[in-house]
Amino acid sequence: MTILSSFFNRASNAIHAYPSCSKLLVLCTISSGGLVAYSESQAENETPSEKKKKVLVLGTGWAGTSFLKDIDVSHYDVQVISPRNYFAFTPLLPSVTCGTVEARSIVEPVRNIIKKRDGEVQFCEAECVKIDCAGKRVYCQSNIENNLVGNKEFSLEYDYLVIAVGAQVNTFNTPGVLENCHFLKEIEDAQKIRGTVIDCFEKAVLPGLSEEERKTNLRFVIVGGGPTGVEFAAELHDYIQEDLVNLYPIAKDLVKITMIQSGDHILNTFDERISSFAENKFQRDGIEILTGRRVVNVSEKEVAMKIKSTGESCSIPHGIVLWSTGVGTRPVIKDFMEQIGQKNRRALATDEWLKVKGCDNVYALGDCASIDQRKIMEDIATIFEAADKDNSGTLTVKEFQDVLDDIIIRYPQVELYLKSMHMSDVTDLFKDPRGTDATGVDIEGFKSALSHVDSQMKSLPATAQVAAQQGAYLSRCFNRMELCEQNPEGPRRFRGSGRHQFRPFCYKHFGQFAPLGGEQAAAELPGDWVSMGHSTQWLWYSVYASKQVSWRTRVLVVSDWLRRSIFGRDSSRI
Amino acid sequence: MTILSSFFNRASNAIHAYPSCSKLLVLCTISSGGLVAYSESQAENETPSEKKKKVLVLGTGWAGTSFLKDIDVSHYDVQVISPRNYFAFTPLLPSVTCGTVEARSIVEPVRNIIKKRDGEVQFCEAECVKIDCAGKRVYCQSNIENNLVGNKEFSLEYDYLVIAVGAQVNTFNTPGVLENCHFLKEIEDAQKIRGTVIDCFEKAVLPGLSEEERKTNLRFVIVGGGPTGVEFAAELHDYIQEDLVNLYPIAKDLVKITMIQSGDHILNTFDERISSFAENKFQRDGIEILTGRRVVNVSEKEVAMKIKSTGESCSIPHGIVLWSTGVGTRPVIKDFMEQIGQKNRRALATDEWLKVKGCDNVYALGDCASIDQRKIMEDIATIFEAADKDNSGTLTVKEFQDVLDDIIIRYPQVELYLKSMHMSDVTDLFKDPRGTDATGVDIEGFKSALSHVDSQMKSLPATAQVAAQQGAYLSRCFNRMELCEQNPEGPRRFRGSGRHQFRPFCYKHFGQFAPLGGEQAAAELPGDWVSMGHSTQWLWYSVYASKQVSWRTRVLVVSDWLRRSIFGRDSSRI
Repeated sequence: MTILSSFFNRASNAIHAYPSCSKLLVLCTISSGGLVAYSESQAENETPSEKKKKVLVLGTGWAGTSFLKDIDVSHYDVQVISPRNYFAFTPLLPSVTCGTVEARSIVEPVRNIIKKRDGEVQFCEAECVKIDCAGKRVYCQSNIENNLVGNKEFSLEYDYLVIAVGAQVNTFNTPGVLENCHFLKEIEDAQKIRGTVIDCFEKAVLPGLSEEERKTNLRFVIVGGGPTGVEFAAELHDYIQEDLVNLYPIAKDLVKITMIQSGDHILNTFDERISSFAENKFQRDGIEILTGRRVVNVSEKEVAMKIKSTGESCSIPHGIVLWSTGVGTRPVIKDFMEQIGQKNRRALATDEWLKVKGCDNVYALGDCASIDQRKIMEDIATIFEAADKDNSGTLTVKEFQDVLDDIIIRYPQVELYLKSMHMSDVTDLFKDPRGTDATGVDIEGFKSALSHVDSQMKSLPATAQVAAQQGAYLSRCFNRMELCEQNPEGPRRFRGSGRHQFRPFCYKHFGQFAPLGGEQAAAELPGDWVSMGHSTQWLWYSVYASKQVSWRTRVLVVSDWLRRSIFGRDSSRI
Repeated sequence: MTILSSFFNRASNAIHAYPSCSKLLVLCTISSGGLVAYSESQAENETPSEKKKKVLVLGTGWAGTSFLKDIDVSHYDVQVISPRNYFAFTPLLPSVTCGTVEARSIVEPVRNIIKKRDGEVQFCEAECVKIDCAGKRVYCQSNIENNLVGNKEFSLEYDYLVIAVGAQVNTFNTPGVLENCHFLKEIEDAQKIRGTVIDCFEKAVLPGLSEEERKTNLRFVIVGGGPTGVEFAAELHDYIQEDLVNLYPIAKDLVKITMIQSGDHILNTFDERISSFAENKFQRDGIEILTGRRVVNVSEKEVAMKIKSTGESCSIPHGIVLWSTGVGTRPVIKDFMEQIGQKNRRALATDEWLKVKGCDNVYALGDCASIDQRKIMEDIATIFEAADKDNSGTLTVKEFQDVLDDIIIRYPQVELYLKSMHMSDVTDLFKDPRGTDATGVDIEGFKSALSHVDSQMKSLPATAQVAAQQGAYLSRCFNRMELCEQNPEGPRRFRGSGRHQFRPFCYKHFGQFAPLGGEQAAAELPGDWVSMGHSTQWLWYSVYASKQVSWRTRVLVVSDWLRRSIFGRDSSRI
């Protein structure tokens, strides 16, 4: 009797402690062998839970969400903090500014994403205001402004911290930018631009304005000729020509879009062919491109700039300015970098495994981080030593090939270098200038063969693609943490002994798009393939539809595109 | 030669002046008889334009938009002023608060509506701040806050002014309401509520709150048990039970909706059966209804009220309060009423033809106006005199029947009275108490027969239905202005001679709906027909879909309903 009652007590405790296992228990008890099944289910659940580590994720952007989608919640207690309770499909933000796509169509509540994980992921809508890596604790603050009941501030402990808070706009300390410019980083930014564009038109058609005043109200200025700026210009041009001039006929000849770019060409991170295709398309569309100019001041009514070649100053009036010139550091990251001795950087330095340099158990990914890739020349002596198995002082091709795989994994710049030099085989490195194969090299020869390899190191761009891959990579590492402790899967350590626990993060570039309006787009695809025109726009449609985070947003985005093509874009000022 | 060139000059001028007739001209010139056709088309177009009167419409709500849809722009120069450049389908506002329908799905840009009229209707997004009816001028101000170029203020002249600016919320001077309550009059209100509801949930699940604090954050209070309040409560209940409790599991047992009603029942303008059906439904749903209480103060955290029967005071905490208790007067209307000697009224008094009393050429309709129906007892002597053709001092049934149609049109309360007394025939009025027919009545008998008729006079409710019918009625009057000057179509004037130019406005009540949540609704339909339950909800869906102002919004609203049923409502805080 005592045994039975003690069993029920334990069972009831277990059910309260692990609600999810209660179903299993009930099922097993109903079927035969209740006691055995119970003890098994407890064993399964308790053992990992006793040492379940707390993973705290900051941010629900591309990096954070992609980490959350794959992390194994049976091994970790996962908690997420973000000032936004949704994930936003940011590449469609320029479409939101003109109502081609609705803001709601590109967001998915984080709770919807984590709900699929049996509710074991906890989410708090709050902003992290301070990271204390010595105390393994973060300080947070709710950003809800309404006077609601309870304390807005709280702190949370962690075992592992995953920082994925993204970046903020970079004004390069240009005066007047924060006060007078629009940005395009958040959903709210896009919604605000949408309203302001309509305001410009409504204001321009008020009675009693001079033609000059109307023109100024209808002057749309975009600072920065990168993908965001270009896509916004294209969207805006389509919106105006396809929808707004029909509703505001007198605006037709007064409206003007101007793009200011400090470089010599727009889209200068793209292939040259795309860049000039875009410039030609914009010229035909009447979008003015001012290149080689640096904006020095933005006032309420004017954008002042300096022509780089001549040093001359000039200015243009504006009705609205979009500032899209790159990313800057968030205050919480700045503060954290000072703590860990990473002052004067734009982003948190991590190693190749996304671990923040200078502190334990803290990872950073996405726009707030940048990987500090180890130079091969720093390790050249130890590599030589490790590779030269017979300690002969000469590295043979055979010996080099034995360590080559590890080198390529550990120093990805080697592969990039080979590619850039059109070398098919690594042994080409050892060819002497006359083209004859060398049978071996000494340390000096080895150094000189690899001396230019590090020039191929590039920091990764601040894109959704990079962030998403990093999130997926990191969750894979977390999920295999125990497994890889015993069976490390990384390359051999040249400085130390043994192997690295994991392979370092390796970015795969799947290409990038630049929609140019008028149902045309340009794309850089893998394998240096360039595609431009209407068919590329269809490719863009299918890629962007397929990349949506949920079926809900996929359906909404596609139906928005359909709606736009049937009814046009909505110009209500809401 | 001179004749020919002068013809071309005239033709070219005409084309510039009337672009719309150019097509006709081209068509006619291509076919035979060009000259004749030209002179005809000019004659048709020029004559009315010379005396084209300026009609200025204030507001683009139900009344204004329905006026604009039908007004004949070939007879009038129509200009519209509204602080909102769109028409909003306000009966769906409660659905917007919970994301059942998106805000964009129920708005249609005014310019889209007037575009169909060949652009002859001018629209300005501005707020009318002062009406000067002596100077026939209104003063306007753009409400665009961005620092755009040009003067924000302007004034416009009119020949006819149509005031349809609607009403604002009525706080009954209750302290704290403006600061701490939400309202549900505009699109922005609904969007704000949607965000705040999510805020309440996010705040309630923050770490470190006591259960009491969580409960307070999840206490939704609705002041006013009219159709708006009831529909919001129903929507909110569905939103919480169908969507939010799945995402915020700990909120499930903490959330509470409370409705405060000053009367004894909610929905007290509806049939009693509907009122009790709604109360039972809400009770089953766990929505608390506090009746017989008047709210005396709303603070940041509490709603204080007085129990009417006992005079006791009590208060409840709140996370959010919706105030939906009736309509008040806009400042511009208040100011205008003072000008024309209509102080201390809630709305502009108009005659039965919607003309504002006390000034010329100004009409008012919708929520900002109320019809001052003439009492039949005021005119009783003149009616008797006019009806008593043989001046015998006795009105025979025959004589009365001759003027009856005119009386019923001029004094609609007569028909309502007959209906309320279950009289099938007007001669029943003259029956003496014993039930025998009287052959005639003298003036005293006539007075006493009609003495209770005026008790049936009711002011029209502040609904979309009334406003839309008034707008349509007024545009019909404007379009027939000239025609009816020569051939008046109204009832005979009893005070003066001849007939009224138009029939007075007569409201037809097509019934009203009260959606109660859980796919159930109640409806009062014409003929005292009451319908409740799931089928009524489907009736509601079809009526609301059919009443949409454009095909675009119809498609959007229906697809929103579909989306909701497939994917649920979005809980992203944007």
